[in-house]
Amino acid sequence: MQTNISILGATGSIGKNALSIIRENRDKFNITALSADKNWQALAENIREFKPKYVSVGTQEGYDSIKREFPNIEIFMGCEGLKNIGQLDETDILLTAVSGSIGLPATVEAIKKEKRIALANKETMVAGGYLIRDLLKKYNSEIIPVDSEHSAVFQSLKAGSHNEIERIILTASGGPFRGADKKFLENVTLEQALKHPNWSMGAKITIDSSTLVNKGLEVIEAHHLFLVDYDKIDVIIHPQSIIHSMVEFRDKSVIAQMGEPDMKTPILYAFTYPERVENKLLGNFDFMKFNNITFEKADFEVFKGLKLAYDAGKQGESYPIVYNAANEAAVDLFMNRKINYTDIYKIIEDELNTHKSVKSLDLDVIMDVDREIKNKIYNLYE
Amino acid sequence: MQTNISILGATGSIGKNALSIIRENRDKFNITALSADKNWQALAENIREFKPKYVSVGTQEGYDSIKREFPNIEIFMGCEGLKNIGQLDETDILLTAVSGSIGLPATVEAIKKEKRIALANKETMVAGGYLIRDLLKKYNSEIIPVDSEHSAVFQSLKAGSHNEIERIILTASGGPFRGADKKFLENVTLEQALKHPNWSMGAKITIDSSTLVNKGLEVIEAHHLFLVDYDKIDVIIHPQSIIHSMVEFRDKSVIAQMGEPDMKTPILYAFTYPERVENKLLGNFDFMKFNNITFEKADFEVFKGLKLAYDAGKQGESYPIVYNAANEAAVDLFMNRKINYTDIYKIIEDELNTHKSVKSLDLDVIMDVDREIKNKIYNLYE
Repeated sequence: MQTNISILGATGSIGKNALSIIRENRDKFNITALSADKNWQALAENIREFKPKYVSVGTQEGYDSIKREFPNIEIFMGCEGLKNIGQLDETDILLTAVSGSIGLPATVEAIKKEKRIALANKETMVAGGYLIRDLLKKYNSEIIPVDSEHSAVFQSLKAGSHNEIERIILTASGGPFRGADKKFLENVTLEQALKHPNWSMGAKITIDSSTLVNKGLEVIEAHHLFLVDYDKIDVIIHPQSIIHSMVEFRDKSVIAQMGEPDMKTPILYAFTYPERVENKLLGNFDFMKFNNITFEKADFEVFKGLKLAYDAGKQGESYPIVYNAANEAAVDLFMNRKINYTDIYKIIEDELNTHKSVKSLDLDVIMDVDREIKNKIYNLYE
Repeated sequence: MQTNISILGATGSIGKNALSIIRENRDKFNITALSADKNWQALAENIREFKPKYVSVGTQEGYDSIKREFPNIEIFMGCEGLKNIGQLDETDILLTAVSGSIGLPATVEAIKKEKRIALANKETMVAGGYLIRDLLKKYNSEIIPVDSEHSAVFQSLKAGSHNEIERIILTASGGPFRGADKKFLENVTLEQALKHPNWSMGAKITIDSSTLVNKGLEVIEAHHLFLVDYDKIDVIIHPQSIIHSMVEFRDKSVIAQMGEPDMKTPILYAFTYPERVENKLLGNFDFMKFNNITFEKADFEVFKGLKLAYDAGKQGESYPIVYNAANEAAVDLFMNRKINYTDIYKIIEDELNTHKSVKSLDLDVIMDVDREIKNKIYNLYE
């Protein structure tokens, strides 16, 4: 029996890794649906190879081009298109690998359809954490994290039970500016921020990794995924990105998940969990290649985005939505050279400080808060 | 409900650690029986504190002295005394923390009584591996390893299933002579061999750690405990002794168990498994104190005892008994300054080369082979 997989964000970094796994395991996996935003040419290639029944594209140009070449495929468009893919009965596992809060509505649909979510869209859990936790109580769905850190925690947690958790330790590479001071950060250019030492990823997450906002988002994600208080979630810098994260249990035993910095392992695990199948794309872990592992303290003063994540998370309610939306807009502005690097922190902080919290967070309210915050920021800086 | 614990080897390093755990958790644990070899004075102190119903001592002097002070306690003596403790119905968990093959008969008794064995006597599994595996099929007993390496593997295996194991990676500190060449080893003195960089342990195991024979014993122990082929058991040098061992699964995900080099964590785990309780004797793991972890290749040429363990293990049958018995006798001779350091390897190798294998390994045969090998070596060198 093949597992039917639908991928939101098929042409991004996670999507490509997922497709390479499926390519090597055609006996196990079948592609039901794929989505792409602007890059319809890459999507067309994927359609030729994997023959999905459904696709969704982000642009009219893409829609028309795909329609012309593949008249027999059902084609959706935009955010509504992602939702349509989320609703497909034929899917067994929905891999959410789009970037940003746009992934949330489709994820909500797939939870209602009681699908497994292979979650690679951390903004979903940050903006929609409370909503998703409520939905998971009602529907027989499950979320298997794909983020290497959360996959590591998920795997490590198998060695104990929830009430035995002393703390979760998320590792962070520290990004390209590890060890920098405030002064240095103020002068960081876009080109500098786009270079990550260990991981090859999309632009937005690469910037987020450099600011440690990515780690901040992961802290909030971990809180919702593993139902652990913020004071039981630590971040340590581990520049080699070999230990993907850890759990310390109350007997002071630390369980860690390690591996090459390669997303194929957590993606494969999310597809086959609770089983582990052979990973044909990686050799045995080479301890002589990765023979030196170090740890450093995370600097919450310089990398203020990390501290703000804890603040937003602890305040709860709609504050995490604000944290995420402000960051998305600010990173977009930075990538378009409209603001300086440390303005990202400033924008997030300003929005958190002026936010009036909202409590009943259904999907519409979440998306409204998300939109309002982004619009407000764009209006200020465009 | 308290768990009744009996300890073979109460005055040794593991025994002391176990008692310190029990001291901090009197609500959870009760001492049923204790044993000591020569150090009856320390045993007497333990009796005063923990009030066991049964004890066993190794010497007549100890027997008489204990009898005088504690006329109401049942006292056993010698190897037979250990067996008597192994047979006690009142025990829930038998911690086997004696050194050498003397631990085997008592362990066999406790398995037949369907007790949990907290195994800290690796010679038991090396000499009696096949026998114990047979017994475990017949009796509703279980072995929870206490050796830090095997406890680490045992814990890491919770993250996957047996058929998903790619390999077990036992870590070794490398001992005090890590990086040494053959020439250096030839001139090692007893004083040098008794200094271990990370672990505070008894004399025999400290010597074994320096020769890497300890790691060799652990390889054979791992083979029997986890039912994994020798070509799926690797040894790597990890001088800091922070990662206690690892399992790589077939999806190339590596699960590691980490912690301070302190035996209290694996002992506590073996006592409370499958639960984990608070370890009051250790603080949270301090990543800033242990902030640098390195790996090196194990040198099978210089530390030939490690290679010989794989040879003996793969030959199977009675060869592992020979490996262990030859080492026990040789280390004893070295500690009594009768042989040089590298003679330990030479003696093991000679015995393995001249051994005529025995197949039907019941307890008597195992103990006979063990005794014959030891006697032969003592006759040659005394």
